[in-house]
This record gives sequence, structure tokens and C-alpha cells, in this order.
Amino acid sequence: MKTVKDYIITIPDFPQPGIQFRDVTSVLDSPEGLKLSIDELYKLLDGVEFDAIAGVESRGFIFGAPLAYKADTAFIPVRKKGKLPRETVEQSYDLEYGKATIEIHKDAIKPGDKIVIIDDLIATGGSAEAAAKLVEQLGGEVVKMIFLIELVDLKGRERLAKYDIASVVQYEGE
Amino acid sequence: MKTVKDYIITIPDFPQPGIQFRDVTSVLDSPEGLKLSIDELYKLLDGVEFDAIAGVESRGFIFGAPLAYKADTAFIPVRKKGKLPRETVEQSYDLEYGKATIEIHKDAIKPGDKIVIIDDLIATGGSAEAAAKLVEQLGGEVVKMIFLIELVDLKGRERLAKYDIASVVQYEGE
Repeated sequence: MKTVKDYIITIPDFPQPGIQFRDVTSVLDSPEGLKLSIDELYKLLDGVEFDAIAGVESRGFIFGAPLAYKADTAFIPVRKKGKLPRETVEQSYDLEYGKATIEIHKDAIKPGDKIVIIDDLIATGGSAEAAAKLVEQLGGEVVKMIFLIELVDLKGRERLAKYDIASVVQYEGE
Repeated sequence: MKTVKDYIITIPDFPQPGIQFRDVTSVLDSPEGLKLSIDELYKLLDGVEFDAIAGVESRGFIFGAPLAYKADTAFIPVRKKGKLPRETVEQSYDLEYGKATIEIHKDAIKPGDKIVIIDDLIATGGSAEAAAKLVEQLGGEVVKMIFLIELVDLKGRERLAKYDIASVVQYEGE
């Protein structure tokens, strides 16, 4: 039986020389890959109680929205600055070159809400950490972080040691 | 019983004076709104045979991915230029100010594939038309276009008269 990893295409030297780009969109190309990836992510939430799933723009939307639908919870889009129309809170984080700022709607989380953060991939963990801070800024609790792909060598898990993290596919030393 | 329209918040004068912004993210704020919006979109596909759902970045991802999962089909992300790692085809279209270019992976569609295009909202229909051209460029057939919200006064339906279009919520003269 095929695993999620079998559906992921690796593109050498993209977007720059030396980077092995793990293309998460290739799991979406077939009904089987899409179904398997959502179902495997869903299993990572087994036993977790939560009120909403927060997905990081924009590949986090693709995996987070079906999970929220399946789990019967709300979905919180974590967006790049300037895209959300109502009042927001924001967090900036460092990229390899420069900075990025992400936002969520202020009314998306009430104090005490239990939130799952999802993104397609965890590398250094910068964007997931910023998303967690947004949740906490509004009094929410990050009860789990899940990712389809984990690039183990980049040590996002160490940076986010205080959170409960799980991933479906891991790449290490490859 | 609440309808999808009841969940949509209207923000006056956003992003500029005179625009009534229909905030589709507000349907996602509750499990009921999210479930209802996906289920109503799914009903629009009743009797339609298709191989994949193509969602337009990035709010089209939020509604398209759960539908693809539910319908057991593939999902094709229609992305802004430069974001997809493999070989793509592209289409440009006019915005109010300037131009935008969108892409899909070349191998995402095979000749004869039946494709549903989804976006959160149809206004003038420019982005949906460009998405349809991408599908057709690769030999696919657009069998349906669906939208959560239709801004009737902007006449996207006239521009896209050759396609089969359906929407869940319509705003007209408001």
C-alpha cells in the first residue's frame, strides 16, 4: 500500500541551488493521495480536544479546511498581513531574507479556546511559532501542532519544544 | 434555521470607500457555518461528473479542498505566479489596477479531464475565466464553476456565459 511519502515529489535545486524542495501539492494530484494525507493528519488528532483548526496561508488552508470540516470545528485562516478585512492581531517572524507578518481576526479566538495549528510543512518552525503566538495573544491555548511534512534536520521541533508536535512524513539527512 | 448568508459579515468601505466587502471568512468562525457552506457548495455539484476540483488561491483553497475530499477527487491548486515548483501553464487577467497571473501544474490535468472550478466569490469573473483558460489550455473541460458568493451586479455570469455557473449566496443591488 502506498504511503503519503510515496506521493511527494522532490524537486532538486528549487527555489535555489542546494535545496531539495518537497512538493506537497503532488499528494493532491490523485484522489488517493489527497484522501490518505487528510486521513493521516486526522489520525494525529486522535484523542485531542479542540475548538478550532488554525491553518497557515496558503498550503495550510488546503489541509486544514478538510480537517476542520471532518472534525466539526471552526477554521481560522492565518493570513499574510493586509488580507483579513476585520480587526486583527499580528506577529512578525524572520525569514532567510527579511521578515514576514501574519495575522488572524481578533474575534476568531476567545480566551480558553483550544486550537490546533496546521501547516503543510515544518522547517525551522518560524511561521508555526508566530501562529502560536497569535493564538496565545488572544488567550487561546495551542493544544497541538500538526504538519504533513517535517524536515527534521532544520530542528523546528527543538524551537517549538513547549508544544505538542506531530507530523505524517519525516525527511532526515536526505 | 440559519442560511449561509446569515454567517456572512459585510464590512462597509473596505478595502476602499464605496465597497461593501462580503467577508467570506466569517462563515468559517463557527463549526455550523463551515459545515453549512461546504454542504451547500457540495449540493451544487449534484449530478455533475468530474475528475478534479480546481480552487483559486487562496480562499478557493479553503472551500475547494474539503469538497475534493468529500467527493473523492483530486484537488488542483490554482496559484499566483511563481509559487508552484514544477512545470506550469499560466494565464494573465486584468485587475482594477494592473494585472495578475495565475498558474497550474502542467501535469495536473490530462486531456479530457472534467474539472470543477471553485472560488469563494464571483465579481466580474476575471480570475474564474483565467482559471478556465488554464484548464482548457491543457485539454481539460470545465464542467461547472461554483462560488459561495455571487455579486450579481458585477455581471460575472454574463462574461462567463459559456460555462455552467452556480452560487450559494447572491447579493444584488445591496
